[in-house]
Amino acid sequence: MQLQKLNIILLLTAGGLGAYSDSRGMPGVRKEVADFIERRDGYPSDPELIFLTDGASKGVMQILNTIIRGESDGVLVPVPQYPLYSAAISLFGGSLVPYYLEETENWGLDVNNLRQSVAQARYKGITVKAMVIINPGNPTGQCLSESNLREILRFCYQENLALLGDEVYQQNIYQDERPFISARKVMMGMGPPISKEVQLVSFHTVSKGYWGECGQRGGYFEMTNIPPKTVDEIYKVASVSLSPNVPAQIFMGLMVNPLKPGDISYEQFIRESKGVLESLRRRARMMTDGFNSCKNVICNFTEGAMYSFPQIQLPPKAIEAAKRAGKVPDVFYCLKLLEATGISTVPGSGFGQKDGVFHLRTTILPAEEEMPEIMDSFKKFNNEFMEQYDDRSGYSRM
Amino acid sequence: MQLQKLNIILLLTAGGLGAYSDSRGMPGVRKEVADFIERRDGYPSDPELIFLTDGASKGVMQILNTIIRGESDGVLVPVPQYPLYSAAISLFGGSLVPYYLEETENWGLDVNNLRQSVAQARYKGITVKAMVIINPGNPTGQCLSESNLREILRFCYQENLALLGDEVYQQNIYQDERPFISARKVMMGMGPPISKEVQLVSFHTVSKGYWGECGQRGGYFEMTNIPPKTVDEIYKVASVSLSPNVPAQIFMGLMVNPLKPGDISYEQFIRESKGVLESLRRRARMMTDGFNSCKNVICNFTEGAMYSFPQIQLPPKAIEAAKRAGKVPDVFYCLKLLEATGISTVPGSGFGQKDGVFHLRTTILPAEEEMPEIMDSFKKFNNEFMEQYDDRSGYSRM
Repeated sequence: MQLQKLNIILLLTAGGLGAYSDSRGMPGVRKEVADFIERRDGYPSDPELIFLTDGASKGVMQILNTIIRGESDGVLVPVPQYPLYSAAISLFGGSLVPYYLEETENWGLDVNNLRQSVAQARYKGITVKAMVIINPGNPTGQCLSESNLREILRFCYQENLALLGDEVYQQNIYQDERPFISARKVMMGMGPPISKEVQLVSFHTVSKGYWGECGQRGGYFEMTNIPPKTVDEIYKVASVSLSPNVPAQIFMGLMVNPLKPGDISYEQFIRESKGVLESLRRRARMMTDGFNSCKNVICNFTEGAMYSFPQIQLPPKAIEAAKRAGKVPDVFYCLKLLEATGISTVPGSGFGQKDGVFHLRTTILPAEEEMPEIMDSFKKFNNEFMEQYDDRSGYSRM
Repeated sequence: MQLQKLNIILLLTAGGLGAYSDSRGMPGVRKEVADFIERRDGYPSDPELIFLTDGASKGVMQILNTIIRGESDGVLVPVPQYPLYSAAISLFGGSLVPYYLEETENWGLDVNNLRQSVAQARYKGITVKAMVIINPGNPTGQCLSESNLREILRFCYQENLALLGDEVYQQNIYQDERPFISARKVMMGMGPPISKEVQLVSFHTVSKGYWGECGQRGGYFEMTNIPPKTVDEIYKVASVSLSPNVPAQIFMGLMVNPLKPGDISYEQFIRESKGVLESLRRRARMMTDGFNSCKNVICNFTEGAMYSFPQIQLPPKAIEAAKRAGKVPDVFYCLKLLEATGISTVPGSGFGQKDGVFHLRTTILPAEEEMPEIMDSFKKFNNEFMEQYDDRSGYSRM
């Protein structure tokens, strides 16, 4: 590890960050990522199967582009989902095959839903080639349990699906009951044939965690059980745009290989990083409790990631008013919220929802000391909104 | 301009480079790019039509992806060409329509060749949608003249082609007779209908010039006469991967808005940047003269860019020896050169060539003081190689 650090220092002093790197990223940093994965999961990882990318999104796009040949190729994507997946699948001309997360089961994943989604897609002539999981979930904030991950892997094995594990929020966990566990660790633990045959690509980033360096655009993906010929093709495509940006590669190295006991700033590093995560944990709790104290709002606890995704049960009158205004109901609600309070949220329809069910997504990132005031402001708005559109109320201020 | 600088300083002090920017890049830097283009060309430029990218390659890929719907869409690409174009067109499933640059005309572009290429493509059922020019040329090093650019623009207008102007080497010019002139400047000077109707996208980068900060991955493209709906679509696609990396955006701002007379380090900046470019000019001359002093080697002068692309006239015996070794003849030559001297070059076949004509590409970037020794070493190798495979020589050391 000292050698890696030395390599980076040499790089910085001899010529700096000015040159292209290997199209897969600098070997020294890829080695650091492999060591990080091994420490995390307890199974060795091969730097040759780790590619550094300009953010995790670019990695996801590259892998989806490799998988999708045309519109008859389908990819299973959770709904609600982070819109990167719908956008990229559409850009590459493939078919999105949705599977619904169960809100009443704390956004858990029911393998029977998966089977149904695959059967429906096949009936339409779609070859389902891969499945995406986002763990912890965006926008839903759930952490997948080990038993759930086992079911998913068994399903991928049976159905011959590659598994794409979007694990960018692995450091952002706000409860102790269900710690993050990587798809790779579960897979390795299951032994052959699953550990030897399921094709898995896992994604990570410097944009989240307690560092949140999104502007750097740094990420990696790690491939397991991907045929060497495919790895070569992915390398070839990566080389078309020469190399990921070099400063973000250095960031990635620092992220996966942080300070250790005995390092000069170790105590401060632990204090600050723990401080950030503990504050996020308190904010997740404040926000969930705040939403759940509001009329017609129900919200699962944010187990991980950075989002709260409350369901807003809009009265029929509000839905009618939205229609009259030419707006999707949740967009109508979010715009009213913005106008009344200045709080900016994303309507749930941007992430996909079941018909007639409405949500909004907000981050848990506002400053902790401002959180009570924000939730009070939301509650006041929501009360007035619900009162205004209450079926029993005789008037409308619209 | 002071305001732009202030914006950047505020950005750096308030929160740093950690946040995503607008998916098109920071407004302040896009304004600086627009001002740079206006100063360069004498025509105003609109920051809303300038997108910052992770290097010029990513911008080229994004525009090609926008243009190509399927294999019946063709893009005119020069041969020899920088392989980004062939790779990206193939990745997006389109058709490359080659047009040959004329080596005996100093790699100039003959519009009659263009017409022939388009006619042949149409005969095959291909809709030719766009034309790529690389000016200054990579790997060929020529600078297009104003009259040649006018012909190209007239041709694009007549044939309804979008023009993609890869102008990443615009700062790298090594002669005074033919300074760099942008496609946009020529187009604007031609007046309507061409200036109002030809769709032009121009590319630039922080990876070349006298700075050469390739590892940062910074670039931009500027769109002219692109329909607003298309610009919106390009914006939407850019937003899928959130934003270009932020440090490289700052680099781009510094590149297009360099120090001015009166700034504290201005004299040193001029001395250093001029020093780099003058040294490159001397190296271009040494390399061209060196190649032309070699047996069976002819080489056009590197007017611009960073490359020398000599033609190697391989004797029939050498071609036969290559065949026996299972190698393409120029690859055979380049490998022998590498083994004998340690000089690493790229076989011309990687860039496309006419049948039976062989080249190699090398950069003019070796240190100036090492250049005489390198050229001597090349000459010695080449002499021995040519002697060994001379038709009149009775022996072979192979």
